Amino acid sequence: MNEKIIKDTVDAIVEEYVRPTNDMTLAAADRLCEKVLKYAKEKGVNAVVAISNKGGHPVCVKCADNSFIASYDIALNKAFTVVSLKMTTKELSTLAAPGGSLYGIQFTNGGRIVIFGGGEPLKNKNGDIIGGLGVSGGTEEQDTAIAKYGREIFEKGTK
Amino acid sequence: MNEKIIKDTVDAIVEEYVRPTNDMTLAAADRLCEKVLKYAKEKGVNAVVAISNKGGHPVCVKCADNSFIASYDIALNKAFTVVSLKMTTKELSTLAAPGGSLYGIQFTNGGRIVIFGGGEPLKNKNGDIIGGLGVSGGTEEQDTAIAKYGREIFEKGTK
Amino acid sequence: MNEKIIKDTVDAIVEEYVRPTNDMTLAAADRLCEKVLKYAKEKGVNAVVAISNKGGHPVCVKCADNSFIASYDIALNKAFTVVSLKMTTKELSTLAAPGGSLYGIQFTNGGRIVIFGGGEPLKNKNGDIIGGLGVSGGTEEQDTAIAKYGREIFEKGTK
Amino acid sequence: MNEKIIKDTVDAIVEEYVRPTNDMTLAAADRLCEKVLKYAKEKGVNAVVAISNKGGHPVCVKCADNSFIASYDIALNKAFTVVSLKMTTKELSTLAAPGGSLYGIQFTNGGRIVIFGGGEPLKNKNGDIIGGLGVSGGTEEQDTAIAKYGREIFEKGTK
Repeated sequence: MNEKIIKDTVDAIVEEYVRPTNDMTLAAADRLCEKVLKYAKEKGVNAVVAISNKGGHPVCVKCADNSFIASYDIALNKAFTVVSLKMTTKELSTLAAPGGSLYGIQFTNGGRIVIFGGGEPLKNKNGDIIGGLGVSGGTEEQDTAIAKYGREIFEKGTK
Repeated sequence: MNEKIIKDTVDAIVEEYVRPTNDMTLAAADRLCEKVLKYAKEKGVNAVVAISNKGGHPVCVKCADNSFIASYDIALNKAFTVVSLKMTTKELSTLAAPGGSLYGIQFTNGGRIVIFGGGEPLKNKNGDIIGGLGVSGGTEEQDTAIAKYGREIFEKGTK
Repeated sequence: MNEKIIKDTVDAIVEEYVRPTNDMTLAAADRLCEKVLKYAKEKGVNAVVAISNKGGHPVCVKCADNSFIASYDIALNKAFTVVSLKMTTKELSTLAAPGGSLYGIQFTNGGRIVIFGGGEPLKNKNGDIIGGLGVSGGTEEQDTAIAKYGREIFEKGTK
Repeated sequence: MNEKIIKDTVDAIVEEYVRPTNDMTLAAADRLCEKVLKYAKEKGVNAVVAISNKGGHPVCVKCADNSFIASYDIALNKAFTVVSLKMTTKELSTLAAPGGSLYGIQFTNGGRIVIFGGGEPLKNKNGDIIGGLGVSGGTEEQDTAIAKYGREIFEKGTK
C-alpha cells in the first residue's frame, strides 16, 4: 500500500520534472553545445554547433575559435532543416540528389535547406522532435558523425 | 641586471602581444553571454544575447527561454552594427533619426543595421574594438542598460 | 586653307582622344579613387571610395585600412544612387526626408538608395553623367565634402 | 654577447609580430589587383578582380573595361568563399558537384558561395589565411589560372 503511494509519487515527479519539456530549453541546448564542441575538438574539428527549438528558431549557437565563417549559416540552416523536414540532413541528401524524389528542395525555402550531412533532429522521450542540431566545420563525414553523437547523448540525457 | 632586462622585455612583449586578444574568442564570448543573460533575468527580461568578433561574424548566441523570436535577428544585427560602424546602437539612434545626418542608414546594408539601443562595441585593453554585443528582449531602455552592463564587465575583465 | 585643315584635324583629335569616353573607365576610376582616398586621409577619414559607371555598376572600390565594415555597402550604394536618380545623395536627403516629395524612396530599390550625403554624379565635358562617386567613412558633412571634392577634380580632369 | 641576445630577441619579435601582417591591407590588395589585371589582360581576359580581408569583407575591387556585369558579384563572392571555407573554389567545385560530399553548399550562405574555379585564399608567411582573391571574366580554366597566378605572386611578395 505504502509502496504504491511512493511509486505513484515518484512517477508523478519523474513525469513532471524529469520528463523533458515539449520544447528545447536554453539550459539543455547550451549543455549539448558544450558536449558536441568538446567531442568535435577531440576529433580535430573546429566546429560551429547550432541548436534550434521545435519552431526551427535558434536557441544556442557557438563557433569554435578558427571555425569557418561559412559554417555559421550552414550549422544554423542544418538545425532548421532537420526540424522543418523531420529527418537528418544525411537522409535528405539522398532524396535531394539529382534523380532523387526531392531533387530541387534546396531552392524552395529561401536558401535554408541543407542537403548534406551534419544535421540531426532531437527528440524527447516520447519521440517528439523538440529541436534540431546542426554541426559544420569538418568533412561531411565528420560533421555527420559529430551530429549523430550529439543526438545520441541528447536522447540519452532526456530519458 | 641582464635578467631584469630580459624579464622586462618578455613582460613587455607579453603585455603588448600576448595578453590583449586581437579578436573575440568563444571562451570569452560564452562567459560574457552567461553574465549578461543572468543580469537580464534579474531585470525580468528574457533576452537574446549575441556576440560577434571584429569581423562582425557571430561567435556565441543564446536565447533565453520565452524570448521573442524576432529578438534573434535583432540581437545578431546589433552585434554586427556596432562592429561595422564602431559606435553603440544608442549613439546611432540619434544620428539615424529623421533630421539626423545619417537618417536612412538603416536601409543601406541589407537590413543589418539596427538604429535603437542594445548594441555595444567590445574593446580589448588597447582600446581596439574586437567584437560586438547585441541584446534584445526588453524595452529599448532595458536592452540599452543590459548591453552597457555587458560592455562594462567585459572591459573590466580584459584589463 | 591650311589653317582650316589644321583646325579640323585638331578638332577631330580633341573630339576623338581628349573628350572623355561616354562611360567610366577603370583607369579614370582608379585615379579618382586614389585622389579621393588621399584627400580623405588628410582630413583624418578612413574612407571607402566607390566609383560606378553610367549603368550604376561598380568599376573600382577601395577600402582604406581601418575603414568601417558598413562603409563598403554604403559607398557602393551611394555610387549607385547618384547614377540611378541623377542627383547627389545630399540633394536626395531633402526630398526623401519625412514630408519631402520622395519620402519613402529608400524602400523602392531593394535597399540600394542612400539618402544622406557622400554621393556625387560624375559628368563628362558634355555634361552627361558617366558615373557615380560614393564616399563613406566620416561624418555626413565630411563624406559630402570629400565626395564633392572628388566630383570637382574629376570634372576638371576630364575637360 | 648581451647585445646579441637583445638583437636576436628584437629580430624574433619583429619576425613574429611585426612583419607578417595579420590582415589584408589596401596597399597590398591594390598592388595585387594591378598585377592580376595586367596578367589577365595579357591572356585576353577583361577581368573583375576582388580582394577580401580575413573577415571576408572586400578591400579592393577593380573591373576591367568591358568586363561582364555579372563578374562583379562573382569575383566578390569567390573572394568571400575562399576565406569562408579555407580552400580554393576549384577544390570546392569537386566537393560541391552532384555526388560530392558538399553537394548543395552553394545554397547555404545566402548566395555567396561560388563553386567553380577562380578563387584562391591568400596566406601570409606564417601560412595564415589573411585574405581572399576572386577573379571572374574568362572561362573557368582562365579564371582559375589567373587567380592561381595571383596567389603565387602574393605569397612570394609576402615572404
